[in-house]
Amino acid sequence: MSEKIPYKIYLSENEMPKAWYNLRADMKNKPAPLLNPGTRQPMTAAELGGVFCDELVKQELDNDTPYFEIPTEIRDFYKMYRPSPLVRAYCLEEKLQTPAKIYYKFEGNNTSGSHKLNSAIAQAYYAKRQGLKGVTTETGAGQWGTALSMACSYLGLDCKVYMVKCSYEQKPFRREVMKVYGADVTPSPSETTQVGRKILAEYPGTSGSLGCAISEAVEAATSTEGYRYVLGSVLNQVLLHQSIIGLESKIALDKYGVKPDIIIGCAGGGSNLGGLISPFMGEKLRGEADYRFIAVEPASCPSFTRGEYRYDFCDTGMVCPLAKMYTLGSGFIPSADHAGGLRFHGMSSVLSQLYADGLLEAVSVKQTDVFQAAEDFARVEGILPAPESSHAILAAVNEAMKCKETGEEKTILFGLTGTGYFDLVAYEKFHQGVMKDTVPSDEDIAAALAKLPVI
Amino acid sequence: MSEKIPYKIYLSENEMPKAWYNLRADMKNKPAPLLNPGTRQPMTAAELGGVFCDELVKQELDNDTPYFEIPTEIRDFYKMYRPSPLVRAYCLEEKLQTPAKIYYKFEGNNTSGSHKLNSAIAQAYYAKRQGLKGVTTETGAGQWGTALSMACSYLGLDCKVYMVKCSYEQKPFRREVMKVYGADVTPSPSETTQVGRKILAEYPGTSGSLGCAISEAVEAATSTEGYRYVLGSVLNQVLLHQSIIGLESKIALDKYGVKPDIIIGCAGGGSNLGGLISPFMGEKLRGEADYRFIAVEPASCPSFTRGEYRYDFCDTGMVCPLAKMYTLGSGFIPSADHAGGLRFHGMSSVLSQLYADGLLEAVSVKQTDVFQAAEDFARVEGILPAPESSHAILAAVNEAMKCKETGEEKTILFGLTGTGYFDLVAYEKFHQGVMKDTVPSDEDIAAALAKLPVI
Repeated sequence: MSEKIPYKIYLSENEMPKAWYNLRADMKNKPAPLLNPGTRQPMTAAELGGVFCDELVKQELDNDTPYFEIPTEIRDFYKMYRPSPLVRAYCLEEKLQTPAKIYYKFEGNNTSGSHKLNSAIAQAYYAKRQGLKGVTTETGAGQWGTALSMACSYLGLDCKVYMVKCSYEQKPFRREVMKVYGADVTPSPSETTQVGRKILAEYPGTSGSLGCAISEAVEAATSTEGYRYVLGSVLNQVLLHQSIIGLESKIALDKYGVKPDIIIGCAGGGSNLGGLISPFMGEKLRGEADYRFIAVEPASCPSFTRGEYRYDFCDTGMVCPLAKMYTLGSGFIPSADHAGGLRFHGMSSVLSQLYADGLLEAVSVKQTDVFQAAEDFARVEGILPAPESSHAILAAVNEAMKCKETGEEKTILFGLTGTGYFDLVAYEKFHQGVMKDTVPSDEDIAAALAKLPVI
Repeated sequence: MSEKIPYKIYLSENEMPKAWYNLRADMKNKPAPLLNPGTRQPMTAAELGGVFCDELVKQELDNDTPYFEIPTEIRDFYKMYRPSPLVRAYCLEEKLQTPAKIYYKFEGNNTSGSHKLNSAIAQAYYAKRQGLKGVTTETGAGQWGTALSMACSYLGLDCKVYMVKCSYEQKPFRREVMKVYGADVTPSPSETTQVGRKILAEYPGTSGSLGCAISEAVEAATSTEGYRYVLGSVLNQVLLHQSIIGLESKIALDKYGVKPDIIIGCAGGGSNLGGLISPFMGEKLRGEADYRFIAVEPASCPSFTRGEYRYDFCDTGMVCPLAKMYTLGSGFIPSADHAGGLRFHGMSSVLSQLYADGLLEAVSVKQTDVFQAAEDFARVEGILPAPESSHAILAAVNEAMKCKETGEEKTILFGLTGTGYFDLVAYEKFHQGVMKDTVPSDEDIAAALAKLPVI
């Protein structure tokens, strides 16, 4: 089409997707099933029903249904902050003097500050519909906890958040936003759960970890009447809900006849990357189109690029099901990288299978390079990006610079998952020149992997 | 029209206004001119040219030209974050169970977090076009300083910000965002200016004020080659640039055949309120339509509702021109209210004249009520509002509740100027129940007014 592409492509509310897309339906090699940590057998719906609410169990286990209708109530909630803009990065292209055409899907224009709200409202909605009283979860950087608080507040559902203790103390404002939305926020590890007390006894004064907060949240859910546990990444159901990101992106690009060559997303547990690439990967799996997909992870927590593909626990307390995934070992503790949302030791089983099948590439990047890219981006595109999102910015810029060398006019799409308003301590460290790049040694990773069960 | 109005009305880029509207052109009683603080005669273009760049002087003094074309470069910058959404507050209406129809124009979807960017880019652009090296300004709450930093960074212009010292210390993150954009931020009062040194000698240990920071910024601009001063509110030129808010709102409403009955904005210096109401007030002045306009100010700094309409200084150091406005006296020091952006002692001359002519109403509200309205709003509309913006929310809710009593289906439009991500210390105080409402005594106001020159 000859029509000039606007800076921001907004779909109308009528153009918004009415169903989520389930990528698993088009995968020849399905993701490996979750295993019961006791029996090491695939988790049944009945077993998962003790942890997750019923509709979400169905979504978690369904590898065949390609589309799940989005309930009207969720679509109405989406309309509060969606469709999110697909931005043509004209200013960035100009700055880089690249022939590449760069687009990003911006998910930060809501108070939770990220894409996490897309799945939070879905999980809260099904819990409410089942007549439950509340949900529990963990949060690290705080994006997921904020998103869930917003969703629960909207639906009138109790929300109990276990927040990694060092985040709880370092990010009082994140905590305060959750309180605006009426959530109950507990620093983890805490005395409120058995597993919390055990960890505190073993490691007095520990500042906590995501794996530990997961254990506490699961225990709190399964030991309280009318509660279930919800999780913001890794799970199949989360990728399903997050497919809204990719679906909207594809509709917007199709309107202008644009086909991306390269699709890039940051990857921690995989919620954003999986959501963004879903409909495009579906086309690739069905042989209808071809794309390059790039996962970008921090060099401090490189599960794809340096981990192994095997079964592992999702949590430190080993109360959760085992998942087959690229992992650094559930005992691996990443250094205090500022991209808190990317510090999970494993990776979505769906994305892990795609990576194992060679359908997805991965790169790891250092955080000082990431923050430099973030600042450069903020100055030309006017958005202060989250450190997590900035991993994707850096990789997109690197690809655009390759185009500059070769003269190729490639089209690059990346996911800008959120804003960095609550990450200014990290930006300050970057400005002061005291931010460090840490990369785990081969020995550290080997030691963590050696502790895993052989399955 | 019978078409269902969407949750968010986005204009296309082609529908965006190509000219700002100058409300003064339609005013029968023109706003009073700025006076030279020495001679007490109207400021000439030559005199103003020492402080502001030439094109902005023209805009400041022009009471007759109804439209000013928006340069292409500024329109391109606007496209990075505009058009801003006009939101139909369906969820808020449902919560209030009111027959009123509520709309708000949301200006917070940019990294500066407020509408201030609309004038910042304009002022920076004209400075750049004149070949200047940089601009100076002051900032209180930090929204204006952030906006100007973004605009200057984009254009490659130096930006020197005097930030009220207590804000500089209490809001390190605001400061840090400005540094991301390369601004030079100095806590005020400082040793870098004569007026700063004088104030420090007179009041050692003072935590500063907006009026004092203005004096320093003006001195820095007028004493440095290639610099000019810029200001984010009060001035006629600022209202001109901010008319983009009202123009976009009107185009969006007209598309759906909606005519507001009541238009509400928070008012500090008047930048948002003036911009929002401009095209609607123009219709009223021309006798084409009628609307109720309501200015909402904090009870702690009630310039409209308890001030006098007279000439006063805009700054503490008395180096700036005198403006005729509703004022509490330039020596008035409001209590430490958390709506930092509304703590200016005076009010735009344009709005002051309209208020004096009975074309505009004003109410003052207490901050604890404002924060309650803010939290209620955040829970149903999914946006954490700035304390400033929340003044308008509260007034809109009050009007909607009157409709509930009377059964009237009035249409209410209000300006949601920005987000509260940097105001969580205030939200925390509200949650802890330690936020106080302070209202100045009649004696305090009378004493400050008694010190003004008689003109």
